[in-house]
Amino acid sequence: MATQAKQAKADTKNNHENTEEQADKEQQEAIEQIDEVQNEIDRLNESASEEILKVEQKYNKLRQPYFQKRSELISKIPNFWVTAFVNHPQVSALLNEEDEEALQYLTKVEVQEFDDIKSGYKINFHFGDNPYFENKSISKEFHLNETGEPSSKSTAIDWKAGKDLTKKTSQTKPGKKRGLEEQDSFFGWFLDHGDAGADELGEVIKDDIWPNPLQYYLVCCSLHLRLMRKELVMMMTWMRKVWMMRKVMTMT
Amino acid sequence: MATQAKQAKADTKNNHENTEEQADKEQQEAIEQIDEVQNEIDRLNESASEEILKVEQKYNKLRQPYFQKRSELISKIPNFWVTAFVNHPQVSALLNEEDEEALQYLTKVEVQEFDDIKSGYKINFHFGDNPYFENKSISKEFHLNETGEPSSKSTAIDWKAGKDLTKKTSQTKPGKKRGLEEQDSFFGWFLDHGDAGADELGEVIKDDIWPNPLQYYLVCCSLHLRLMRKELVMMMTWMRKVWMMRKVMTMT
Repeated sequence: MATQAKQAKADTKNNHENTEEQADKEQQEAIEQIDEVQNEIDRLNESASEEILKVEQKYNKLRQPYFQKRSELISKIPNFWVTAFVNHPQVSALLNEEDEEALQYLTKVEVQEFDDIKSGYKINFHFGDNPYFENKSISKEFHLNETGEPSSKSTAIDWKAGKDLTKKTSQTKPGKKRGLEEQDSFFGWFLDHGDAGADELGEVIKDDIWPNPLQYYLVCCSLHLRLMRKELVMMMTWMRKVWMMRKVMTMT
Repeated sequence: MATQAKQAKADTKNNHENTEEQADKEQQEAIEQIDEVQNEIDRLNESASEEILKVEQKYNKLRQPYFQKRSELISKIPNFWVTAFVNHPQVSALLNEEDEEALQYLTKVEVQEFDDIKSGYKINFHFGDNPYFENKSISKEFHLNETGEPSSKSTAIDWKAGKDLTKKTSQTKPGKKRGLEEQDSFFGWFLDHGDAGADELGEVIKDDIWPNPLQYYLVCCSLHLRLMRKELVMMMTWMRKVWMMRKVMTMT
């Protein structure tokens, strides 16, 4: 009897262990199956990204002739870009008086998204002859390499003698040598490659000004124009809201 | 002679005024034309958004059967969801001990994006019989109305007596009446409609956990499994990186 009882107890124990083992095994199998299903979901995500990229590329191409036409029209309006920049709250904060003078020679801005869009963008600034630098165009471009690491590079600015706006001549005390100090300037942005993955000015120009620069040009241009064209401003504001809303929505 | 000179001067002045007027007129025309071009660009943006929405909708449909299959498999693993939540750094920070106990009865989570996607989403939490509340499911949903204003609403939780985890019984001093105080609890989230446009927990569940809950379940489940299935974890981590990268890229 005692032996039988022991045997029964041992069986129960074995059964219990078997059941536990069985449950463990079933869970592991379920995990493996979830993993397989997850792979399918990831494949679908990948395809969705590719299709969306194609749509973006298609529309980037379709927008090009309009951007070109817009650039031509903008070139007829003196000081268009410097006005748009001065009227933009974030960009305006980066401009000192001399920047504004130099930017009066800015005739054309272009934003180019690279063909696969994900990999980066480039902003070109075209200038007329000016007393500050020799360059006809200055650009800054942003790249993501294959591992997703961001970097940026810019055109070197060929400043005319004593005109480098990123360096200011410090007030000299008598007997001390004059020195050059770093100065906060819009043009300092071309030297700054510290946060290429989230370059604030780059993104403001690309995502906020470039989609609709007219609204910033119009914000507070001459009172006359403002009153005469109130409807236009209202429409611009509305369009901007729609644009922002679209941005917010596509981000979610 | 004097009269002739005056006349010439007046002519010059008139010419000057005429030229200025002419320039003003040309600029206004250019602005109007920019506005027209901008309308075309906006129309293209609108079409691009619509096409992208269609792609998203198509893939949302294609993902459904996999999400369903995944839910079935997850239901075979006890404590899957509470483990995933506990292992998620941001969600974990919102859980107190009693929340974790209650969430052991959480059998199924579902995220539904509304058909036009932009307009919002709903998260359903399904529970088994439990000592805390009567509900079989609790949900919170987020909406954007036509003007883009966000709002949220939740299922009212039917707490069992004395079990409301959003209220705690305060320590009573002798002679004082016992009172109920607000308590920080995961379940308090269902009462919080203060920031429906950027609900942190809602977005973490929708955008971070729901796309791949297995990775969070696996992060630190039993050491045994961790060692045995190191490759899987590595693969999950890699998949997560790809997913995050994709997110970052689609945001730019």
